[in-house]
Amino acid sequence: MKIDLNRSSKIPLVKQISQALEDRIRSEHLKKGERLSSVRKMANDLGVSPVTVIKAYDLLEKEGLVTRVHGKGTFVYGEAESKACLYHQPAQTITDYMHRSQYLMYTQRRKRVDLSSSTVQTELLPLPALLESVQHLMEKEPEVLCQYGDIKGDGELRKAASNYLTYQGVSVDSNELLITNGSQQGIDLVARCFLRPGDVVITEETTYSAAIDTFRGTGATILPVPMDRDGLRVDKLTALCDTYQPRLIYTIPTFHNPTGTVMSLKRRGQLLQLAESIPCLIVEDDPWSEIYFDDPPPPSIKSLDSTGNVIYLKGLSKILSPGCRIGLLAASGPVLKRLLIAKTNSDLGSPLLTQRAILPLLQAKKTQTYFQQLRKALKERRDLVVRCLQEHAPPGIDWLIPSGGFNLWLTLPRETNAHDLLHHTEKENISFLPGSACFSSDPSYHCLRISFSSAPNDILYSSIKEFCRILTDYLEKRPSEGIKPIF
Amino acid sequence: MKIDLNRSSKIPLVKQISQALEDRIRSEHLKKGERLSSVRKMANDLGVSPVTVIKAYDLLEKEGLVTRVHGKGTFVYGEAESKACLYHQPAQTITDYMHRSQYLMYTQRRKRVDLSSSTVQTELLPLPALLESVQHLMEKEPEVLCQYGDIKGDGELRKAASNYLTYQGVSVDSNELLITNGSQQGIDLVARCFLRPGDVVITEETTYSAAIDTFRGTGATILPVPMDRDGLRVDKLTALCDTYQPRLIYTIPTFHNPTGTVMSLKRRGQLLQLAESIPCLIVEDDPWSEIYFDDPPPPSIKSLDSTGNVIYLKGLSKILSPGCRIGLLAASGPVLKRLLIAKTNSDLGSPLLTQRAILPLLQAKKTQTYFQQLRKALKERRDLVVRCLQEHAPPGIDWLIPSGGFNLWLTLPRETNAHDLLHHTEKENISFLPGSACFSSDPSYHCLRISFSSAPNDILYSSIKEFCRILTDYLEKRPSEGIKPIF
Repeated sequence: MKIDLNRSSKIPLVKQISQALEDRIRSEHLKKGERLSSVRKMANDLGVSPVTVIKAYDLLEKEGLVTRVHGKGTFVYGEAESKACLYHQPAQTITDYMHRSQYLMYTQRRKRVDLSSSTVQTELLPLPALLESVQHLMEKEPEVLCQYGDIKGDGELRKAASNYLTYQGVSVDSNELLITNGSQQGIDLVARCFLRPGDVVITEETTYSAAIDTFRGTGATILPVPMDRDGLRVDKLTALCDTYQPRLIYTIPTFHNPTGTVMSLKRRGQLLQLAESIPCLIVEDDPWSEIYFDDPPPPSIKSLDSTGNVIYLKGLSKILSPGCRIGLLAASGPVLKRLLIAKTNSDLGSPLLTQRAILPLLQAKKTQTYFQQLRKALKERRDLVVRCLQEHAPPGIDWLIPSGGFNLWLTLPRETNAHDLLHHTEKENISFLPGSACFSSDPSYHCLRISFSSAPNDILYSSIKEFCRILTDYLEKRPSEGIKPIF
Repeated sequence: MKIDLNRSSKIPLVKQISQALEDRIRSEHLKKGERLSSVRKMANDLGVSPVTVIKAYDLLEKEGLVTRVHGKGTFVYGEAESKACLYHQPAQTITDYMHRSQYLMYTQRRKRVDLSSSTVQTELLPLPALLESVQHLMEKEPEVLCQYGDIKGDGELRKAASNYLTYQGVSVDSNELLITNGSQQGIDLVARCFLRPGDVVITEETTYSAAIDTFRGTGATILPVPMDRDGLRVDKLTALCDTYQPRLIYTIPTFHNPTGTVMSLKRRGQLLQLAESIPCLIVEDDPWSEIYFDDPPPPSIKSLDSTGNVIYLKGLSKILSPGCRIGLLAASGPVLKRLLIAKTNSDLGSPLLTQRAILPLLQAKKTQTYFQQLRKALKERRDLVVRCLQEHAPPGIDWLIPSGGFNLWLTLPRETNAHDLLHHTEKENISFLPGSACFSSDPSYHCLRISFSSAPNDILYSSIKEFCRILTDYLEKRPSEGIKPIF
């Protein structure tokens, strides 16, 4: 096993080691019942003292992730499962640096009724407009199939995207844009430019699971900051920055994923000010600010930024075309230049075909009409889910009513475990996202995320009702002692 | 400036520091005339002793990259240029880890007659077949525009790709394939899974410039191994492995980029054996083995591999559709699983539209007919370039006649500098790739690569003739003392 340590980081080695192991256990690279390397071997492999390894194993034991058997060693908590699963070879057979893959893990567990992925039901997407665009493109410029585009992104698309964003209140020049493969690649480009083992990233307490995977993939340490109804607690972050100098603050201020919270305008300003004073970069991920159910959300942090400290990510996959996988990244000056290098090293630029296919949708007024319809449809679904929960959820369940976006965040009684619940709902072909996937470390297990965007109304209602039934059943039957909250 | 050091690596800190600075100078992030940090500041920033920094600066001075001015400091060699260039802000204004970007640098310098990029002239590519494919797709399955594909890649495409590769002699199951955004992303996924600062990668002495950028972007150190007419000198590599344990061997065995060399079957077997004994992974990059001019090349290394140590990359952009940017990665077992995690973290999967657009071309027998035509067309161009060089090149110029691929490698007299020559040809709107971009360190400046794939015959001939004229002129006029070979 290869764990990358940064000996000059403020993050203690013990924590760096235990986190890497926690990632591997929670992503099932190290499986239930699997034995960890002996203290002596691990210390040797990593070039640290045995005491450091012992302390790291202690931390894991305290978190309920491993158990020690006297004279036999340290084992991943839980009974060894014989059934085949994603990673059936022992992790030790190949040394690599990819420790965490919870997004992938849950993607592969999606069921017929998929309440786990924040994607829009195909029928709601603007298929006619996209189809017309491709047909027109093939008539007029089929040669795009045989051409490389600009690495930065097609000039026409960047111009249209600049207008689109300006209309949304984010005024950026087309030269300050980079076209990416969905906003996931934007997150990834940022990570590879600015993060290395031992570096510190700030995120909201819970955050987008695939962003955690990507940041942890660089070996960086994530420090989560508590939130309240106004979003990230900037006061807590300020205190944290006395000890740690973060390289990045990653935030989803508008209809936060997974909780749906909206960061207040005041907080946005405070966060910007803090980032300038550190100084560090803010990565503002904005997947669905177009999808508000009441008033439009406050202006983006990027629109308040005058120093170029904010990298703004706008994904177009979810809300316009998953099949094109286009994202926009807005940044400026040397930050943008470094990101362009990273894009080059990544893939030499996004395909011209998909860029040109989505182009007309950014130019058309019709797209704004489409957004109106989408807002209406998703608001209906949100209301439907909330109503169903009010009618059928057992006592002791809490949820936040989101004012936009695709998701609803549920809290179960403290001693329950959403992973156990998932095993039960999966039997009925219903999947959701266990909340623990949204924590970078020390997860809560008694929370979960329901996406109401991908299932049609009738199925959505009936499966939320079914979900409530299973949940009621689960709460009644669970051992009163409360099993150890490990998935 | 952020330089990532690995204190437990076999690569000395002095070398790690000097290489990072060399990358930045050669990629023009640090510009001519720019002052490096003082020894004291650099030592402080990096947490090393001043002696280490002094030695690193010494190395750079010996290579002609910096000069020291007593009492003033250490400066990048050359007169400061006032004209705006790609990186006009001082590198110090933002700290990041992207040090090398020579591919991007030269991409942005392409001229009207582009002999610098190994791309196929649009008119030679199978546009009618691609167009038909997209039109048919829009008729039958327009919903791909609104769907996410499998992160691993579309199942249909993987099946077709498996058949395609099997036909090419690389027998892989569709489950052992990952669809990437061109083979560049394949290189990148490998780098992020298996490389960190201080790790060692082996490459041929000269290699694909963007692969160097990507490997160096992880902070890894590249050790180049000499080649002869049979490819990489496995005996030299074996000796090197007594001291350094590489994590990866990256090779382009068939029509090597940039030299066009073909690795012999015997060497392929030896390399495989060596990799198994270390053990380490082989990354076999195969951009154009379909494009042979005489006999088909020897079997790929992947086809000889029985242990899963070889990761095989087949790009489809160059030879089939640049506008779709699809690449294939073949690997197995835990290696593939890690690469799938990296793909997830990178971009959650390639667009479904481009995958489906290229699909029929992998199934069609017509594609083999197309390859026959492409081979014929490019062989004609190779012959044309060789004839033109024979007729017009000044004495003292050597070249290798490639038996396949898109490129021809030229060697100038030892004390010349292809960068100077490029300045002259660019005035006539002709660009080529200076050979130094293909060296990871200690470059030779008296060599260059000409791509004969992108310009039509008549323009190709006339511009090679013009190139010879400029070259003759350059050789006659250059100062007899020989300027210092810095670009």
